Amino acid sequence: MGFSVVGQNLPRLEGKEKVTGQAKYIDDLNFPNMLHGKLLRSPYPHARIVAIDTAAAKALPGVKAIITAEDLPDRRHGPFVQDTPLLARGKVNYVGEPVAAVAAVSLEVAERALSLIKVNYERLSEVLDPLIAMESDAPVVHENLDAYPAVFPVQRHGNICSLITIEDGDIEQGFKTADFVFEDTFTTPMAHQCHLETNGAIAAIDAQGRVTVWASTQSVHLNQIRIAETLDMPMSKVRVIQTRVGGGFGAKVELTVQPYCVALARLSKRPVKIILTREEELVATRPRHSSIVTVKTGVKKDGTLVARQIKLIYDTGAYADDGPGIVGFGSLMANGPYRIPNYKIEGYCVYTNKVATGAYRGFGNPQAAWACESQLDIISRELGIDPLEIRLRNALDPGDKTVGGQNLFSVGIKECLKAIKEGMDWESPKSKNRGRGVACVHHLSGLLASSAYVRINQDGTAHVAVGAADIGQGSDTTMAQIAAEELGLSIEDVAVVSQDTDSTPYNWATTATRLTYMAGNAVRRAAADAKQQLINLAAEVLGLPADKLSARNKVVVSVDEPQKRISYAELGVISHWVKGGQIIGNNSWMFNEQPFSIDVKVTGFPFRVLGAYNYGAHAVEVEVDHETGLVRVVNALTAHDVGKAINPLSVEGQSQGGFTQGVGYALFEDLKVKDGKIISNTLLDYKIPTAVDVPAIKSLIVETNEQTGPFGAKGIGEAPLVPVAPAIANAVYDAIGVRVKDLPLTPERILDALKV
Amino acid sequence: MGFSVVGQNLPRLEGKEKVTGQAKYIDDLNFPNMLHGKLLRSPYPHARIVAIDTAAAKALPGVKAIITAEDLPDRRHGPFVQDTPLLARGKVNYVGEPVAAVAAVSLEVAERALSLIKVNYERLSEVLDPLIAMESDAPVVHENLDAYPAVFPVQRHGNICSLITIEDGDIEQGFKTADFVFEDTFTTPMAHQCHLETNGAIAAIDAQGRVTVWASTQSVHLNQIRIAETLDMPMSKVRVIQTRVGGGFGAKVELTVQPYCVALARLSKRPVKIILTREEELVATRPRHSSIVTVKTGVKKDGTLVARQIKLIYDTGAYADDGPGIVGFGSLMANGPYRIPNYKIEGYCVYTNKVATGAYRGFGNPQAAWACESQLDIISRELGIDPLEIRLRNALDPGDKTVGGQNLFSVGIKECLKAIKEGMDWESPKSKNRGRGVACVHHLSGLLASSAYVRINQDGTAHVAVGAADIGQGSDTTMAQIAAEELGLSIEDVAVVSQDTDSTPYNWATTATRLTYMAGNAVRRAAADAKQQLINLAAEVLGLPADKLSARNKVVVSVDEPQKRISYAELGVISHWVKGGQIIGNNSWMFNEQPFSIDVKVTGFPFRVLGAYNYGAHAVEVEVDHETGLVRVVNALTAHDVGKAINPLSVEGQSQGGFTQGVGYALFEDLKVKDGKIISNTLLDYKIPTAVDVPAIKSLIVETNEQTGPFGAKGIGEAPLVPVAPAIANAVYDAIGVRVKDLPLTPERILDALKV
Repeated sequence: MGFSVVGQNLPRLEGKEKVTGQAKYIDDLNFPNMLHGKLLRSPYPHARIVAIDTAAAKALPGVKAIITAEDLPDRRHGPFVQDTPLLARGKVNYVGEPVAAVAAVSLEVAERALSLIKVNYERLSEVLDPLIAMESDAPVVHENLDAYPAVFPVQRHGNICSLITIEDGDIEQGFKTADFVFEDTFTTPMAHQCHLETNGAIAAIDAQGRVTVWASTQSVHLNQIRIAETLDMPMSKVRVIQTRVGGGFGAKVELTVQPYCVALARLSKRPVKIILTREEELVATRPRHSSIVTVKTGVKKDGTLVARQIKLIYDTGAYADDGPGIVGFGSLMANGPYRIPNYKIEGYCVYTNKVATGAYRGFGNPQAAWACESQLDIISRELGIDPLEIRLRNALDPGDKTVGGQNLFSVGIKECLKAIKEGMDWESPKSKNRGRGVACVHHLSGLLASSAYVRINQDGTAHVAVGAADIGQGSDTTMAQIAAEELGLSIEDVAVVSQDTDSTPYNWATTATRLTYMAGNAVRRAAADAKQQLINLAAEVLGLPADKLSARNKVVVSVDEPQKRISYAELGVISHWVKGGQIIGNNSWMFNEQPFSIDVKVTGFPFRVLGAYNYGAHAVEVEVDHETGLVRVVNALTAHDVGKAINPLSVEGQSQGGFTQGVGYALFEDLKVKDGKIISNTLLDYKIPTAVDVPAIKSLIVETNEQTGPFGAKGIGEAPLVPVAPAIANAVYDAIGVRVKDLPLTPERILDALKV
Repeated sequence: MGFSVVGQNLPRLEGKEKVTGQAKYIDDLNFPNMLHGKLLRSPYPHARIVAIDTAAAKALPGVKAIITAEDLPDRRHGPFVQDTPLLARGKVNYVGEPVAAVAAVSLEVAERALSLIKVNYERLSEVLDPLIAMESDAPVVHENLDAYPAVFPVQRHGNICSLITIEDGDIEQGFKTADFVFEDTFTTPMAHQCHLETNGAIAAIDAQGRVTVWASTQSVHLNQIRIAETLDMPMSKVRVIQTRVGGGFGAKVELTVQPYCVALARLSKRPVKIILTREEELVATRPRHSSIVTVKTGVKKDGTLVARQIKLIYDTGAYADDGPGIVGFGSLMANGPYRIPNYKIEGYCVYTNKVATGAYRGFGNPQAAWACESQLDIISRELGIDPLEIRLRNALDPGDKTVGGQNLFSVGIKECLKAIKEGMDWESPKSKNRGRGVACVHHLSGLLASSAYVRINQDGTAHVAVGAADIGQGSDTTMAQIAAEELGLSIEDVAVVSQDTDSTPYNWATTATRLTYMAGNAVRRAAADAKQQLINLAAEVLGLPADKLSARNKVVVSVDEPQKRISYAELGVISHWVKGGQIIGNNSWMFNEQPFSIDVKVTGFPFRVLGAYNYGAHAVEVEVDHETGLVRVVNALTAHDVGKAINPLSVEGQSQGGFTQGVGYALFEDLKVKDGKIISNTLLDYKIPTAVDVPAIKSLIVETNEQTGPFGAKGIGEAPLVPVAPAIANAVYDAIGVRVKDLPLTPERILDALKV
């Protein structure tokens, strides 16, 4: 099938405005009479709030509003478990937890007001280590879990926020049939999303009490729902508008500062802006869960995987947030893109008195993949099988099932492995201190619902309104390409409406590698609906049967008599002025409803039929300095099966961006905690990769034409981060023969390992 | 049928923000780096442009862009005839015609720049009187009419821009059967809409070349189409956002300053604001056509109308604008709400070298009604029949046809007449110098297309996006009521999205008394679509057949077993998270397609099947001062058949506002021209009614339940202005026995008439 717009390497629609500095981010917006908000945060990991005295702060000239928990609905919220108060109520559970919010005429006055709020705390024993937290005599973060409704049934008790178990086959029997059994434990640290633009929002209230929120967000719709829920407002009174987003990576899906802006604006009747500082981001927002993952794998001599048991312990910090989902998803992904007939996976999400953790590119998969892809390397080397070869032998094929039991259509993992084998010249000789490593990933593209409208303008161009928040990954361009392809328009003819709950129909969020697949499906279907209406109108005007007409290049034309034709512009004039009114295509799309059977035992996790799976394999070459312990990635090759690359340029960008973030996760990033407090509180202390830390990354695209995706597409967003750390660690082993099981691979750890 | 929300007297949704001064009008908006634009205007009614020298103006510091016709596409535009250049090209055709546009850092610099632009004109003979213009030897305004494409076939030649003829029956035979034949000629002046907020817009261009225009407009969609057409841009690159509108009355339907803002913004790469001054509004925008209307009516002794011939001559000024439509519509309306079996109506739209005229509340109907309703008074008095009685005898009934041949369903003219007869105590004795007058109106509610979406939010509330520009008349509230009623929600649960071509689907415009009827129909149908989807989902969840469920009060409930029920909020959660995706109702509605037969001969006018007709009758009592000639309206009663009053408070407001505007038209307003130049160029020279000029107006509502309207509604917007002038003139005759046939009824004219 030949495509006109899909498959083209198109620069971002909004690229020019970004590179010329004209793009408006949240902090570029200012309104007349706008106030500046700040949050007072807990200095303790666990303490009872005896009293809060805001009198002195309220008396400070320029202070226009102060709120504490008393001023808000007595309601906790959370995407999985409703355990989180907007402002601490009764006690604080982590260092950095918001206790009060202030709005003042300037940031300086707001900060001074914070210093005048007196909070009388009574310290409580804290629990900071998830393994201790799981003991029966540990201090308890939340005294009464039953008081917190769970959105879906959750297995929980004590500090265990949720437990998921997934099993299939016969795990005992599986291990019995194995020639070898390996058991290893791996750990990962907390890691921060480090979106270059910190979280921020502005809220304004109109005279009728309707609130408008401008926010740097991954979902205006989820923001709208959450603001309404947490502040007891009907959704009809809440409008959320997305500003340009300087990176999100999961950190901007759920609310951050939005509800405080709204509450302060309601009280002061003035617009309120809150922009988090980098320190607040690092100390008090929701980084990736630290993890302890134990993997026991049974394998035949020839490398065939026969049984696997995994125990994942993810530290969710003081509140659940996305934790149950992240652990659940990590558990579903943990076996990787391999056929393993017998398995049992247990995922623990554990409360501690640390910052609440949350969604970050990969959503639980990187921790699981770190463990399992590292161990597979251990196995391959013990068995004397090439690590790339052992992956090929066990790799999934189309027709196999996922963990969770969904039937798979397109599966390109073998093609990815073959592509990197060839692209890296895998078996060629290596220099001294250099080694090569490989690791794989499979990842979901999908989940929940997306809607789109496509309107045909009078001149035959189109407006596409779809709940698909472009957060810098280029989805607006992808959506325009899908609509243009389906409608037979050029990219210039398609306007993609920016995210605004007044304009764009519901979409869950830009998350779960789902936009191209889910929103793309909604756009394609809405566009097909509009196209069919164009064809039907043309049939009436031309006096020909609709099924003998085709629509492309802005013309509806007779299949048999090509001289019989009518342009979209002519049809636009007819529909607007004479017949039927504006043509509007419309679609709400939900993958969950597709009839893909599942018969695996899953407890504690709500979703089973999820979406399409994308696949990837990375090969890296590293050079390790024996004296300093420094690991340098000298060569990087990624291959991803995205079904169909709607915009190959974007797919490459995502591959390279994800790989780069993976290098940080592998080598440097560690959100260090001391006495419950995050001490990596600047970007000097929390190092992320710069240009000198990353080699030129070669990105290969594998296309497998997913039958459930728009034009065969699946997705790419999260996957490229996932295999990077194990690929690098495996290459380090290849280079210097030492195995590090704890991230990051700092020089200290390398030197320590070399000493053993 | 009992209604919950429809029929309620609801205050405007946006009322609070207006009365507290928080509403944002176009001049309240300012952007960083914004420039101010000004237009250089022709000082002559007709002149060749020999040369334009902008060098000195361009050299002035602070001037950022100057455009003349040379900088724009060589393209003329216009809603009926494409005769109008954005900036004069080759010659100027009226005093005030834009010749050049300037954008500068301040208004002062822009004005100074205008004074530095040197235009070398060569005067041409002008034609200012439409009767002279119709002569074969008159100066010609447009040399080559054929060069201007007409949107619909137009009969035209010389200075005749368009001619429409409508006839039915046998006019010669009709006059032969008459006992009496009356022939009179009436005139009306140019009259200005005098919206309190002058026209204004801001345009900004993004780095990708997409333009956003904020405008005080009656149609973001028509603005979008026209900007794209006139400036050669795809509609996908044009976004128009409506700010709050301080009155429009027809003057803000077509473009005013928008294209200049866009052209200047494209050139300067900075936002450009243009706000017209009051003088520019009065001198150079599009007022109501002056008219000369000759009516010849044949009547039986008993007052039965048997034949009518009408010749309407409307002076469209230098350009057609809506002229052909206005003359066509005036012709269609001219017979009034009466049954006249034989008629011939000819409408001439004539070019002169005066300001182009355009749409103003009534759209050609006030001029025709002034003539015909005045003459009917003359007839009734000659025949000795009460003027109210003669109207009742000839009034249309349901099942009759309109001029143009459309079948009528609801016709409440008799009910209106009876209501004012009773309400005014019509036959009671009158004081000295006092008289009573009556006049009627019928007016269309309808035309063209409107679309709407209705989205059901997760909490069961709804967002309604409909192309229905609230211009102060309260349509947002009406739309919310219609949606709430259909969906079974409260008004608080419905958000009506503000006008933005990115958000709101196509609607032609807020014009033609069409919003409640056309957009209301689209909203009701979209809401019904959404409701049916809610019911279908409930049916699936409850395991009951959909046709055994009803939806109201935010609950879908079993008709037979009322304990089986599910709330919209529950259904919202299910649709968003589990099944189907967001529920979206969708409708595009066009009355033109309804199968109402027409068999009347109409030439030169495109529309025949038009919409629903609303009816009204006004009774006034005046007191005339014999010494000063001053006419004072002391008592006013209006009755309008609106089908169903969705919001009676709004209907009354429209009745009273229209009546007040009619008082100005009747008594004061006259846009005086001297040497081709409008000399009534301030609101001191052009007087509009103030509170002391208008009595308390009693407004009665007649409901006839129009079967094609939403909940039986038709509309109200324009009609209340139409009968005011003849009702007042008829009352003046009743008071002092003199007949004035020329508007306005100034003291001078009254005194002159008394002298005769």
